Amino acid sequence: MSKNSPGNFFEDFRIGEVIRHATPRTVTVGDVALYTGLFGARFAVQSSDAFAEAIGYPRSPVDDLLVFHIIFGKTVPDVSLNAVANLGYAGCYFRTPVYPGDTLSAQSEVIGLKENSSRKTGIVYVRTTGYNQDLKPVLEYVRWVMVNKRDEAAPAPGDHVPRLPTVLDPKVLGEACPPIDVVDYDLALAGSKAKFGDYDVGEKIDHVVGYTVEEAEHMIATRLYQNTARIHFNQFTEGNGRFGRRLIYGGHVISLARAISFNGLANAFHVAAINGGRHVAPLFAGGTIFAWSEVLAKSELPGRTDVGALRLRTIATRDRPCDDFPAKTGDEYDPSVLLDLDYWVLMPR
Amino acid sequence: MSKNSPGNFFEDFRIGEVIRHATPRTVTVGDVALYTGLFGARFAVQSSDAFAEAIGYPRSPVDDLLVFHIIFGKTVPDVSLNAVANLGYAGCYFRTPVYPGDTLSAQSEVIGLKENSSRKTGIVYVRTTGYNQDLKPVLEYVRWVMVNKRDEAAPAPGDHVPRLPTVLDPKVLGEACPPIDVVDYDLALAGSKAKFGDYDVGEKIDHVVGYTVEEAEHMIATRLYQNTARIHFNQFTEGNGRFGRRLIYGGHVISLARAISFNGLANAFHVAAINGGRHVAPLFAGGTIFAWSEVLAKSELPGRTDVGALRLRTIATRDRPCDDFPAKTGDEYDPSVLLDLDYWVLMPR
Amino acid sequence: MSKNSPGNFFEDFRIGEVIRHATPRTVTVGDVALYTGLFGARFAVQSSDAFAEAIGYPRSPVDDLLVFHIIFGKTVPDVSLNAVANLGYAGCYFRTPVYPGDTLSAQSEVIGLKENSSRKTGIVYVRTTGYNQDLKPVLEYVRWVMVNKRDEAAPAPGDHVPRLPTVLDPKVLGEACPPIDVVDYDLALAGSKAKFGDYDVGEKIDHVVGYTVEEAEHMIATRLYQNTARIHFNQFTEGNGRFGRRLIYGGHVISLARAISFNGLANAFHVAAINGGRHVAPLFAGGTIFAWSEVLAKSELPGRTDVGALRLRTIATRDRPCDDFPAKTGDEYDPSVLLDLDYWVLMPR
Repeated sequence: MSKNSPGNFFEDFRIGEVIRHATPRTVTVGDVALYTGLFGARFAVQSSDAFAEAIGYPRSPVDDLLVFHIIFGKTVPDVSLNAVANLGYAGCYFRTPVYPGDTLSAQSEVIGLKENSSRKTGIVYVRTTGYNQDLKPVLEYVRWVMVNKRDEAAPAPGDHVPRLPTVLDPKVLGEACPPIDVVDYDLALAGSKAKFGDYDVGEKIDHVVGYTVEEAEHMIATRLYQNTARIHFNQFTEGNGRFGRRLIYGGHVISLARAISFNGLANAFHVAAINGGRHVAPLFAGGTIFAWSEVLAKSELPGRTDVGALRLRTIATRDRPCDDFPAKTGDEYDPSVLLDLDYWVLMPR
Repeated sequence: MSKNSPGNFFEDFRIGEVIRHATPRTVTVGDVALYTGLFGARFAVQSSDAFAEAIGYPRSPVDDLLVFHIIFGKTVPDVSLNAVANLGYAGCYFRTPVYPGDTLSAQSEVIGLKENSSRKTGIVYVRTTGYNQDLKPVLEYVRWVMVNKRDEAAPAPGDHVPRLPTVLDPKVLGEACPPIDVVDYDLALAGSKAKFGDYDVGEKIDHVVGYTVEEAEHMIATRLYQNTARIHFNQFTEGNGRFGRRLIYGGHVISLARAISFNGLANAFHVAAINGGRHVAPLFAGGTIFAWSEVLAKSELPGRTDVGALRLRTIATRDRPCDDFPAKTGDEYDPSVLLDLDYWVLMPR
Repeated sequence: MSKNSPGNFFEDFRIGEVIRHATPRTVTVGDVALYTGLFGARFAVQSSDAFAEAIGYPRSPVDDLLVFHIIFGKTVPDVSLNAVANLGYAGCYFRTPVYPGDTLSAQSEVIGLKENSSRKTGIVYVRTTGYNQDLKPVLEYVRWVMVNKRDEAAPAPGDHVPRLPTVLDPKVLGEACPPIDVVDYDLALAGSKAKFGDYDVGEKIDHVVGYTVEEAEHMIATRLYQNTARIHFNQFTEGNGRFGRRLIYGGHVISLARAISFNGLANAFHVAAINGGRHVAPLFAGGTIFAWSEVLAKSELPGRTDVGALRLRTIATRDRPCDDFPAKTGDEYDPSVLLDLDYWVLMPR
């Protein structure tokens, strides 16, 4: 019986297979503090129990992206230890708030498989669900990754590409947000007067701030999520690898962009869903991250008058301020672009 | 409606103006642990609930300087985002102990304004008060900063330099210290036999220890306080700036000096007040901090026999041990000096 | 009265002397989170309150090695501030589980002293016991260190080398492990199907993963334990010292090896005892740690059918993968070897 795990290769997956992931994880105020130290986000709902209680939460919920990273981390040993590339996300939405003391676990269903023409790799699609200790789903998303085959000659384990939503329906966006008492939502304490009604579709916002990333920071963050992807931690091996350096977990860029976006989106207190995202280029330590956002759409939530949803596109760049909103020219991204993220946030109305 | 905040410029301030700062912050045992990891202080009252309870606290209070940094951090987006230099502190004293679970918020009153003769900058004086969730003041201090003008031609918004105390009156020093049961204050566990009565005015103490600072450490600390001052985080911009490097938050040096001072001041369990402080020179990553202290004065506290106050001057240096107590020659500081801090600590009698 | 402590020199110790160490320390979920961020261990019992409760713990216990490091750290100012080398450990075993909220303190008895022939140094043997707030022993171990003399001419304070166990008796191994409900021990959540019965004496396991260590990481960890050994923190002094660099605390390598060993030993949920260990070579920042283990022995625990003990030898290396199990050739260690650790772990049967 082999004791150490080499991870799954493409031919090990089967459509319909359900994988229960190790390790369940109790999220605590300790995790929240370290996440604050690493990213410095200032959203009042996640920072202050008193603020959260005033508007209708039982206490401060755990940052949505910290929940995402913890759930994502659990899937790595089973899904992407032998991945060549993380290709995309879809249909990600938050379903129950997570509070300190909750225990998170995850399972994934294989919903698609497609061998590449080289026969050396294939694409695996999984739908992952995160649960709390009461087995209530807290988060759900699809991701697809290109995974190596162990043996080029092995037959493809299936051939099915699932249909995926390009954008989440506003009717699911409020699931992880309790009714908000808008009257007691203190805009001065929250850091901005701009509410849902003050944003226009097409509006672009430069988030101004730049954050330089150190090796110790991204490794501490990624270990906090118990994400074991080797490429982030091992300079000995990566020094001789594709980039010559440790590659920073893509989710680190998402969290940095979210923290930076406070300057312009201070009342976007809840990331309700991620429609899709692309890691356009890798990030390495020493790079300085900037970000800007565009309002792609606005939506009311069925049956709710307390909060509304903004669909945002946030672009993060490396070593390039975003006052002129760098993105694409034709099909070509500006060479500074790291991340192109499409997501829904909730704001008080 | 502009969504991102460029911060206030000199001409935006008005005497008597009151600013309520974002973001309220619940301090937790997570913040305390990370602060310990970053500075390594060993004062027993803040380290051990059992020790704190034995002498009369309900549990370990949060380190005084962590409280200071969190309150200070909140003021940055409104007061010093466009600051050229942080010029000084005065009248800083702690008024209520802070415990894990408390939520801190801050507001500042503009108490002085003075345009510089260049007309490019001016000095802003603010009195900042930190509050807990019951709106009890936990901390109060004045600071003054040199702030850029947006427009050189703008008229000065006022001209008033407030009178500030040079030293806090001993009668306010006990406000954040409950009655201490001196009999149950265990000197062996606290790490030193030296109590209030064992220190002499004029006595100098070399704290011996040296701590080297890394980029990741000071950035994690400063983000933990949700301090957004750009100069600490952005190598891309600062690489072309005045120093060519990220400047370390001055409060980081204060916290390092305090942690180092345990070796010689182990029973100085509470920083009761900061009379004033000067950041003599900037610190950059890679520097090693040393410190020494002089007892400037001793004072009983009116009506209390449990604790006494030492007025200390602590000097922190970079890359220079302090066994010969480097400070000033005439008006000139030794080139190694980073910090010259004048403050009151409490000790058991 | 000298205020700062120069630490004890060899001639300051006396056989039978008992030293109560400063600083008592309440361990919290904040410490646990930071420890997770620094090492990334994924053992389910320590990660999930729900998992721990299901098998019989009242909640997740604190990682055994975090407890060890905190107790060890307390002894440094009294025992090893003037140490030349940390020579060995023996008879280390865990006696009571530690939970967040517990307060740890430590005391040591000097059980052996032996001057070296140079008369410049001597070896000090101490038996250290860690206690919780109820004064129950949580941990006990012997260590011996080579300590400088203050004065070469001083007479030796004693001459006695204690007899030490080379391996802990299985009958003490279960003291810090409550009765485990094996039926509810969920192997999928724990991350491996391999239980006690699946391991064979002589079996070797490559743990595959490699972790690169940064200066900020080891200093944050070592300060978290309030370990003040100067050699870990002071580049100014160490830059001119024996290695020209800060030396990483040996316990950092032990914790990294333990975290890495999850890949192959996922159900080894409790380090019950450390028989002995040797820090074969020093580690410096930038090195990448790999590890492998050999099963030296297996033992049932008297009167218990829930768990069994594996005696492991874990070797950690620097910048060298362990797929061919590097160790010794004759008496010579492979030059990559950093750590050779002999310990007992418990596993469900």
